[in-house]
Amino acid sequence: MVRIDGRKPNQMREVRITRNYIPYAEGSAMIEVGKTRVICAASVEPKVPLFIKEQGLAGGWISAEYSLLPRATHTRIIRDSVKGRISGRSHEIQRIIGRSMRAVVDLNLLNNMTIWIDCDVIVADGGTRAASITGSYIALFECVNKLMNERKITEYPIRDYVAATSVGQVKEEVLLDLCFEEDKCAEVDLNVVMTSSLDIIEIQGTAEGKPFSIGRLSQMLDLAAEGISHLIGIQRAALGESLIKKK
Amino acid sequence: MVRIDGRKPNQMREVRITRNYIPYAEGSAMIEVGKTRVICAASVEPKVPLFIKEQGLAGGWISAEYSLLPRATHTRIIRDSVKGRISGRSHEIQRIIGRSMRAVVDLNLLNNMTIWIDCDVIVADGGTRAASITGSYIALFECVNKLMNERKITEYPIRDYVAATSVGQVKEEVLLDLCFEEDKCAEVDLNVVMTSSLDIIEIQGTAEGKPFSIGRLSQMLDLAAEGISHLIGIQRAALGESLIKKK
Amino acid sequence: MVRIDGRKPNQMREVRITRNYIPYAEGSAMIEVGKTRVICAASVEPKVPLFIKEQGLAGGWISAEYSLLPRATHTRIIRDSVKGRISGRSHEIQRIIGRSMRAVVDLNLLNNMTIWIDCDVIVADGGTRAASITGSYIALFECVNKLMNERKITEYPIRDYVAATSVGQVKEEVLLDLCFEEDKCAEVDLNVVMTSSLDIIEIQGTAEGKPFSIGRLSQMLDLAAEGISHLIGIQRAALGESLIKKK
Amino acid sequence: MVRIDGRKPNQMREVRITRNYIPYAEGSAMIEVGKTRVICAASVEPKVPLFIKEQGLAGGWISAEYSLLPRATHTRIIRDSVKGRISGRSHEIQRIIGRSMRAVVDLNLLNNMTIWIDCDVIVADGGTRAASITGSYIALFECVNKLMNERKITEYPIRDYVAATSVGQVKEEVLLDLCFEEDKCAEVDLNVVMTSSLDIIEIQGTAEGKPFSIGRLSQMLDLAAEGISHLIGIQRAALGESLIKKK
Amino acid sequence: MVRIDGRKPNQMREVRITRNYIPYAEGSAMIEVGKTRVICAASVEPKVPLFIKEQGLAGGWISAEYSLLPRATHTRIIRDSVKGRISGRSHEIQRIIGRSMRAVVDLNLLNNMTIWIDCDVIVADGGTRAASITGSYIALFECVNKLMNERKITEYPIRDYVAATSVGQVKEEVLLDLCFEEDKCAEVDLNVVMTSSLDIIEIQGTAEGKPFSIGRLSQMLDLAAEGISHLIGIQRAALGESLIKKK
Amino acid sequence: MVRIDGRKPNQMREVRITRNYIPYAEGSAMIEVGKTRVICAASVEPKVPLFIKEQGLAGGWISAEYSLLPRATHTRIIRDSVKGRISGRSHEIQRIIGRSMRAVVDLNLLNNMTIWIDCDVIVADGGTRAASITGSYIALFECVNKLMNERKITEYPIRDYVAATSVGQVKEEVLLDLCFEEDKCAEVDLNVVMTSSLDIIEIQGTAEGKPFSIGRLSQMLDLAAEGISHLIGIQRAALGESLIKKK
Repeated sequence: MVRIDGRKPNQMREVRITRNYIPYAEGSAMIEVGKTRVICAASVEPKVPLFIKEQGLAGGWISAEYSLLPRATHTRIIRDSVKGRISGRSHEIQRIIGRSMRAVVDLNLLNNMTIWIDCDVIVADGGTRAASITGSYIALFECVNKLMNERKITEYPIRDYVAATSVGQVKEEVLLDLCFEEDKCAEVDLNVVMTSSLDIIEIQGTAEGKPFSIGRLSQMLDLAAEGISHLIGIQRAALGESLIKKK
Repeated sequence: MVRIDGRKPNQMREVRITRNYIPYAEGSAMIEVGKTRVICAASVEPKVPLFIKEQGLAGGWISAEYSLLPRATHTRIIRDSVKGRISGRSHEIQRIIGRSMRAVVDLNLLNNMTIWIDCDVIVADGGTRAASITGSYIALFECVNKLMNERKITEYPIRDYVAATSVGQVKEEVLLDLCFEEDKCAEVDLNVVMTSSLDIIEIQGTAEGKPFSIGRLSQMLDLAAEGISHLIGIQRAALGESLIKKK
Repeated sequence: MVRIDGRKPNQMREVRITRNYIPYAEGSAMIEVGKTRVICAASVEPKVPLFIKEQGLAGGWISAEYSLLPRATHTRIIRDSVKGRISGRSHEIQRIIGRSMRAVVDLNLLNNMTIWIDCDVIVADGGTRAASITGSYIALFECVNKLMNERKITEYPIRDYVAATSVGQVKEEVLLDLCFEEDKCAEVDLNVVMTSSLDIIEIQGTAEGKPFSIGRLSQMLDLAAEGISHLIGIQRAALGESLIKKK
Repeated sequence: MVRIDGRKPNQMREVRITRNYIPYAEGSAMIEVGKTRVICAASVEPKVPLFIKEQGLAGGWISAEYSLLPRATHTRIIRDSVKGRISGRSHEIQRIIGRSMRAVVDLNLLNNMTIWIDCDVIVADGGTRAASITGSYIALFECVNKLMNERKITEYPIRDYVAATSVGQVKEEVLLDLCFEEDKCAEVDLNVVMTSSLDIIEIQGTAEGKPFSIGRLSQMLDLAAEGISHLIGIQRAALGESLIKKK
Repeated sequence: MVRIDGRKPNQMREVRITRNYIPYAEGSAMIEVGKTRVICAASVEPKVPLFIKEQGLAGGWISAEYSLLPRATHTRIIRDSVKGRISGRSHEIQRIIGRSMRAVVDLNLLNNMTIWIDCDVIVADGGTRAASITGSYIALFECVNKLMNERKITEYPIRDYVAATSVGQVKEEVLLDLCFEEDKCAEVDLNVVMTSSLDIIEIQGTAEGKPFSIGRLSQMLDLAAEGISHLIGIQRAALGESLIKKK
Repeated sequence: MVRIDGRKPNQMREVRITRNYIPYAEGSAMIEVGKTRVICAASVEPKVPLFIKEQGLAGGWISAEYSLLPRATHTRIIRDSVKGRISGRSHEIQRIIGRSMRAVVDLNLLNNMTIWIDCDVIVADGGTRAASITGSYIALFECVNKLMNERKITEYPIRDYVAATSVGQVKEEVLLDLCFEEDKCAEVDLNVVMTSSLDIIEIQGTAEGKPFSIGRLSQMLDLAAEGISHLIGIQRAALGESLIKKK
């Protein structure tokens, strides 16, 4: 099957990462996946949330917020600030972003700091949660480097790469990295977050149209792993010199 | 390994379903899974949400809300109504409940009605989202039967059973149906929603401690399928006579 | 006149109290008055509200919250958390519950703690505020016993029993303990909170249909006293052994 | 006992009513009871609330809102609009005001209109809820006259006078119309709303310090009736010519 | 051109200032400008806002809040507390009031206190923001005198007078102090805040109908200066004896 | 005086406009003024606000919303959606943007539509409100062209150009287009919105440090006019071909 935009089933859209997109942030990146564009920014707050402190859970924390600009979508959406509450979808997504970043960081090395990850979607052509995770890693990386350089943390806390992609089933065929038009009519929608060894950090799959077998899930996971492997290659390229400097 | 409460790794806690728990609801059930207790109620609203109507997406809708009573947990939690907003966790869970119910119902047969599913957790000893889904199915079933009897819908819209369970990895071992104490120290936490043919409706897995392999996921899914098969047996038993009447 | 459910005018519905209904709460009870069902839970917070502290009003505090589950009523009500604010009716009721509990407790003995009373109505067939007060007393009692046993308070602070009932005037006749159907068409609606010596803690009477004389109020109060006397007997029975242990 | 401000136990503070205080309102009054000052305004909205319409409860409605200016009190209070929610106390009071007005009006004659009563407290030296009710009656009266003159309603809907006062027990003595300093240390606080025939519309009594007997309540009610009789005399005087015109 | 109320183009409406209007406030005034009436109250809070403290911006602060009573206007407006948020217009106005007061006070002398200025509009017949500023100065003045008398501040912090007026262009003619009817059809609306030396503290001009030239602005400013000169004369008269005492 | 970034007092920072920045919006632009970057998007809603409709004010409407991304600033700001309310500053700014756009459009030609202008600040290095207005004009222009092409409006409604800049006084010197570092220590801050004929649409000036004379204002206005003349040249260049097509 030829896809809406001419891609092969296992072909990801073009990915571009622009580092240091926001001058004031401690770390930031603009990630583009096809037409989808997300600004990811990392900020440092010199304290941890109350519940972490009270429960002695960790020596630091990473928290994420996700939002769409009103015209990121085909029709304008009303701002959460106007409605006075965060939408259920935003809540769901920002919780995944936060968990994904925390999964590759040794929080105990964060020295009583919280790193805030802000993902603001400029254009939403499908795959914004996956793009947010892949881009947030770059922002987080820059931020941690800055903290290391400023000696605010003393031991390097990032343990691995993390990236995410979506896989879907459209007309019984398994496709990598759905764009909005494909996503709309997908029968199954799967988001996968993985490390560089292609172990799973987070998996979320939903039968939009009809239930799917464990076998089909397995097939989709293999395709996701392929895509994430590609994305981590792009992350490595983007971070290139920084990686060397780090050592 | 012997578990905290003496269960075997693949053993679910005792499950009890009390039908018609709330007299005024169009359908309702109290579900108990060990100490966990959730009241599930189904209500009928004679209209569909605006976005469904505007986009012509379906002829009916199912929406869910999930909440914890303040003392469902070990320490009292502040009510969402006092904070003035729904917590991110509640948002995330109620979205899964809604999707799970919609996955087994032909919404086009709902005749411009919305069925509201309310899940209120009385005691939260782990597995509340899975219990909510399994119990909501009973409430939904009763509600649909009532609508059929009142001729408000004319064709039977429920296509399959749906139930959910959690599987986790604790100290490298895979366990079925985690209680709160196990959940707290789980390395992986997986929630699975399946139909009677053990096809997947929703899968959500998170590496709390460390990433897990695709192989480990596969093993966990098999255990989840075992548990869900058991749960659907309990659902069948609970609905017994109603099932016969329905035909 | 024979009442809707066959009761005599001065007959209360059957009252059942289940102690320790919520395992995690410091004290709890399920109270049933006919079909009406309310979960009452008491929680301990190791500090007093700011305004109490600043004004040096008391050495401890008791605060109450009251809420209806969405399907406690004949038609589903929208959650306060969705509306983002507590309804006026809930506000009014939870203030009475709090005042009623505080009236029988020597707050200065609470040792800088706040006891939170949560009343969550599972089924609302009339009389929920009265049932909440009568049931909250049991939860409060259990909670205080626990604090005494743990030596968190050293002198017994509860001074008396407290229970509440409603009395109404329907078709010119005075009735005890109105159910929802009676309440709907009552001309006068009176809620009374009393101690074991049948002194008044709180009285709230409203002419729904037409004003009533001081003489009629007097007659209604006598009937309320009769009902409350009955309720305190039930409380005593429920607390039986605990009462003995306490001494 | 001589009172803080030299009054006798059964003596009310000086009451002044200024009609038409707000030029744009359909009816309005400034009521002063000693230092307490409340602006009452009546507004007409040409529709009834949804729940009244849906339930076919009445042909019109009266709704009230009550608020304190930030410096009506000894220490500044934070505005409800800043907190984003109405305080429990305001909620409780505005519900009584609404019920009191509705009790003397034949709502079916209001011709699908809602009359809004706004009570804004400029100075709060005790007794603001009673003053709000007594003053709101004047605003309501003016508003109804205006509607009659404009032929927007055709049959006169007000059935009686309504006024309110507070009675309290301070150091075992029963006092009429408590000022703030007396209210602070009252053992019992009773608010009574009555018609011109001294029948009860609303009664709210709270034991602040210790429970009180039915006999003591009776004594307090007699004193309240005395006060309300005085207040209705003042209302009559204030409305004087309008009363004549009305016939 | 003769104006709607018979005034000359450069004629201000009658201005009346009543000092000490709110007995509990540390300073207060009722200001009337024609039919427009605003209550201004000043309160002292013994701390500064967090952002001032953190940034070390000043040794004290002045903050303002502005609100309309629901029937200050021709048609009833819904309370901000009911909507759960402050309107954009109120936000805009209260920010100007705050800036205007801060401009004439040496904040460093306020000794870690915040002075809150509350402006509550009783009747809104145009020019409420200007009246609020002119009246707030009186409340501020009283408040500062009280703080001086109580030795809570030791050096006199008010540096100058401050008053405000509006100027508008209606049918090409420049008019001082627009009333509501004029404001509604004004082509240009200009609000000016000035000191006693007629220097500008704040200027806000909006072309409601069509853009205006720099020359026209200049002409309007001259008229505003004339009006403010008049207002400061009235402030001086109102403060008369206090001014002498102050020295 | 040489400025922080080497500019002359009357020199604006480099301005870049990128048209069609947001693919889904009916009109959009990214405007950069030095490091300040704002995304402006125009959206069409096929109805007018209720108050416009009810009061018959106009045949269409333009409304604006303004927001900062959390890391647009030196330190992360909490999202309005998290606080549940729009900040006073955002409210103030979005009202100016809306008024500025409405001032150059004949609303009666908008055919019962509302054009929403969304300004989202990516980087805030001073002058964001001025940049928002200048950029919004481009988004509005594109949007109107689209509506003309689709024959949704039939007569061209834009009457003039509109652009804005800030002027400030720093150390007694008048400077054009303040960057953040200059703005922080400005004694006077003036924002001016003008048309192509350099007539004023909106003027807002605030004495941050000390009051300023009418003469000084005049001098600042001349500098603002110079800057706006420059900006409108840039707008013309950006719209180049579109302008020709339009005729």
